[in-house]
Amino acid sequence: MLSSTGMLSVCALGGINEIGKNMYVIEYGEDLVIVDCGGKFADRTFLGVDLIIPDFTYLVENQHKIRGIIITHGHEDHIGGIPYLLKKINIPVYATRFTLGLIELKLKEHKIFRESTLIEIHSDSRLNFGNIQATFFKVIHSIPDCLGIVFHTPEGKIVHTGDFKFDLTPVNKQFTEIHKMAQIGDDGVLLLISESTNAERPGSTPSEREVGKQIEESFFNASGKIIISTFASNVNRIQQIVEAAIKTDRKLALLGRSMVNVVSVAKKYGYIDIPDWLLIDARDVKQWPSEKVVVLCTGSQGEPLAALSRLSTNSNRDVRVDPGDTVIFAASPIPGNEKDVTKIVDNLFKLGANVIYGPASKTGMHVSGHGYQEDLKLMLTLMKPKYFIPIHGEYRMLHLHAKLAEDVGVKPKNIFILNNGDVVDIQHQEARQTRKIPAGDAYVDAFGEEGIEDIVLRDRKQLSEEGMLIIVITVNKADGSRVSEPDSISRGFVYAKESGDLIRNINEITKSTIDSFKDKDFNIFAMKKAVKKDVGQYLYEKTKKKPMILPIIVPI
Amino acid sequence: MLSSTGMLSVCALGGINEIGKNMYVIEYGEDLVIVDCGGKFADRTFLGVDLIIPDFTYLVENQHKIRGIIITHGHEDHIGGIPYLLKKINIPVYATRFTLGLIELKLKEHKIFRESTLIEIHSDSRLNFGNIQATFFKVIHSIPDCLGIVFHTPEGKIVHTGDFKFDLTPVNKQFTEIHKMAQIGDDGVLLLISESTNAERPGSTPSEREVGKQIEESFFNASGKIIISTFASNVNRIQQIVEAAIKTDRKLALLGRSMVNVVSVAKKYGYIDIPDWLLIDARDVKQWPSEKVVVLCTGSQGEPLAALSRLSTNSNRDVRVDPGDTVIFAASPIPGNEKDVTKIVDNLFKLGANVIYGPASKTGMHVSGHGYQEDLKLMLTLMKPKYFIPIHGEYRMLHLHAKLAEDVGVKPKNIFILNNGDVVDIQHQEARQTRKIPAGDAYVDAFGEEGIEDIVLRDRKQLSEEGMLIIVITVNKADGSRVSEPDSISRGFVYAKESGDLIRNINEITKSTIDSFKDKDFNIFAMKKAVKKDVGQYLYEKTKKKPMILPIIVPI
Repeated sequence: MLSSTGMLSVCALGGINEIGKNMYVIEYGEDLVIVDCGGKFADRTFLGVDLIIPDFTYLVENQHKIRGIIITHGHEDHIGGIPYLLKKINIPVYATRFTLGLIELKLKEHKIFRESTLIEIHSDSRLNFGNIQATFFKVIHSIPDCLGIVFHTPEGKIVHTGDFKFDLTPVNKQFTEIHKMAQIGDDGVLLLISESTNAERPGSTPSEREVGKQIEESFFNASGKIIISTFASNVNRIQQIVEAAIKTDRKLALLGRSMVNVVSVAKKYGYIDIPDWLLIDARDVKQWPSEKVVVLCTGSQGEPLAALSRLSTNSNRDVRVDPGDTVIFAASPIPGNEKDVTKIVDNLFKLGANVIYGPASKTGMHVSGHGYQEDLKLMLTLMKPKYFIPIHGEYRMLHLHAKLAEDVGVKPKNIFILNNGDVVDIQHQEARQTRKIPAGDAYVDAFGEEGIEDIVLRDRKQLSEEGMLIIVITVNKADGSRVSEPDSISRGFVYAKESGDLIRNINEITKSTIDSFKDKDFNIFAMKKAVKKDVGQYLYEKTKKKPMILPIIVPI
Repeated sequence: MLSSTGMLSVCALGGINEIGKNMYVIEYGEDLVIVDCGGKFADRTFLGVDLIIPDFTYLVENQHKIRGIIITHGHEDHIGGIPYLLKKINIPVYATRFTLGLIELKLKEHKIFRESTLIEIHSDSRLNFGNIQATFFKVIHSIPDCLGIVFHTPEGKIVHTGDFKFDLTPVNKQFTEIHKMAQIGDDGVLLLISESTNAERPGSTPSEREVGKQIEESFFNASGKIIISTFASNVNRIQQIVEAAIKTDRKLALLGRSMVNVVSVAKKYGYIDIPDWLLIDARDVKQWPSEKVVVLCTGSQGEPLAALSRLSTNSNRDVRVDPGDTVIFAASPIPGNEKDVTKIVDNLFKLGANVIYGPASKTGMHVSGHGYQEDLKLMLTLMKPKYFIPIHGEYRMLHLHAKLAEDVGVKPKNIFILNNGDVVDIQHQEARQTRKIPAGDAYVDAFGEEGIEDIVLRDRKQLSEEGMLIIVITVNKADGSRVSEPDSISRGFVYAKESGDLIRNINEITKSTIDSFKDKDFNIFAMKKAVKKDVGQYLYEKTKKKPMILPIIVPI
């Protein structure tokens, strides 16, 4: 149990010491509210794992307490785990209209939309969850319709910022509710939970409008077709691309499933303004003169299956990249994606395109949606909390964010740098960090199936780095004496000309190991162990490798 | 054969469309000279591969022509493959004193130093290789004693730049021989072969002295111990660290095998000036007050086994990181190493250190050793070649370097963007690119053994992503009828509670597949194939996975 009656408890099930799978829990007595349920993309060291989501054990065990989940905004690291959570616990999901639109797409894909309860909220909503009430304030980020949350509890107010930056000249007039935030801070904040992504960067985040200016300039300079790629969810950037297309008298085609989907959600709910006469079907691109077309596509992160990757090898059915076309990356590579992106840049140059990407453009045609140090300090100053928990970042970001909090006046002893699963309990307005609840990674494979276990990953790692060797031998089931010659099969281990000798020696060793059991009690388990040891030793001496050795002893 | 008599031929065996494993071949008639023989670190998609080196097939086949190999400088991507080459073909190696010092370390490690022929050259040397003569000019790079090469051939002069930047205020007075270069250009250059690493970056490379200023400033601001990490081979940066230590009245300890080795080579040959009273043994660090010590260590790239990584978890025997110590990364992460570096930064912050790294310092305490666009243009302008081949870069860098060459006046049709193995033939001063010779990757594992084959890597990939399933069954050797129940073993595939059912079904399918052969001719091969197919189909339907399936049919 997170808390006994009369105690306020806060913890993260994901999002701490990592960028991804954000999930936070606020609990008072018998009432529990969840914030966000994100996924994290697995890097290549997680063999065969596609998505990492939080471990839901604690929530499943305490599902009777859960009043609902509030989603701050629609990015994958905040919504990617929702289908997996709802399959386990069907709880109401609260989010703004645009965020719900994206969640709906996800739930339909998982075929659980009908049985899910989605409840639309806005920045003036007030939700009642027993001991906990939630109110909201608008924040700006790189996706529309983002919220910060105020939890009103018997102990006092907790503010969760969501992801944010301060952009005083936002596109589409999505202003931060800065006066409301000041009022919240004035009323007294017990605990601030604030995101830390850009705590390493000094200064203030540039406005999204800076990107718009660069896009417009590059559109005016382009002669052939323009192909531009950005995050489908960055609707305000897409709005600026729309405006640049109109100004340069070009039609706009959308390419890539998520681009088409997200833009249609944004259009339907009025988050983007695209005149109907501007849009053409991607199939009709070839019927227009190059200098009259903009193709807006997915794949700015180098995703191998996305539209831009296909374009870069001219394997898209409808759109060709011709010499003289301009290709613009209106997004920076997320750390870890650099190699995939530069491979596509290389291919586009090979096709003769003029490629505008990171090093070649001033800001890389991108500004971050996460506040820099001055933005974080402004949030801390507005909220002037008694306690502070930096979230949404790797350790150094949390650490530097904590230093910023000290700089604006939070007492060092009132700042908690947590791990996922660490619980902060607050009673009589005094906070202490003592307990832990289960929190960790759950793995989802490429087909959306959960349940790859750690031991499977460890086996895969050994198999992948050292390969394996199977040794088959038949023995007499009465006394364990050897019946056949051993037979060895290797995979991912050796395949060179010299492996003949190696295999012969392995078989000889196996033979003598098995024969050494002649006068002992017949014990298959002991035989296997001995073969594994003897052959393993020989192989390590000979090849300095430790393949997985699987002796198969068949008693007949 | 690269060339018939009277023809000049040039090609790359490595270094094109990649950063790493540089190796170039210049051939005229019966004379062949090699430039560099580098390695490339394998990323994680090369399972179990540690180092990638060039495929030496062409050289082995033409070894009677090889007159020698010239090494431009001592970085891994130019010397890492030398031991593997010399084990195949024992040819004389020509390099400057410092470069030879590093090669010597490598050859001793591989136990082939005694039988190797190493010949020291300097920038005024002249080498005669039959039809080809080589002279040299000094260039500046991030390691001492670097050379550019001029090949004098009956067709004309070929200039190979090596790796370079122009630094007009070099540390240790290692000046670029710019007047000599102007003279070479004035005499007429047929072909320039120039490195392209920073062709994406506008402007000029900052001077190494900029790093020195920042190091000094951070030393003056530090209170506890200073731990600073940089590339062991960047002797000029180490010189500046030495000077900052002297100015701030601190002793200097070296930590990490390659740091100790390279500094000792540099000291021995006079490339670095370290007063003996400055140095203390790493074991004695704890006997000095923190504010009197600088520890200079390896591991700035986050290498898991290097000194800094051990320090970051306080698992080094001699040196501890205490709260208040300052840790400085005087090197930027090479693309691909970012995650390893930030993990160490996180750990150092956890120990309470003040960490100065990339985002927190102005230039990231690092300047590149490779020339930016203005440096590349200056080289092109000095040499004013008729033909140009950009090397040492991924495609976009070669492409952008080619554009720079056009900008300074090289004719577009006289620029060759090659692949490894493409040959440019020059006859009567006319160059054509037509032929190809074998060129590719050879894999070396963690123990220095060559010969991991592609098929082994493919197997590893399947094993690592999907795991494997072994099905053992015994059949009557007379007629192939089933003797035993099948037995299945999986590794890296499933290990969940539900796998019981799966395994039972697999065994059932195997049984009925084997039984279906009852009235046919006994054919183990066909049986295996059928089991593989039937079980594979079932597994894919059930789990959407394609593990490697190995049916083992034991006839008894």
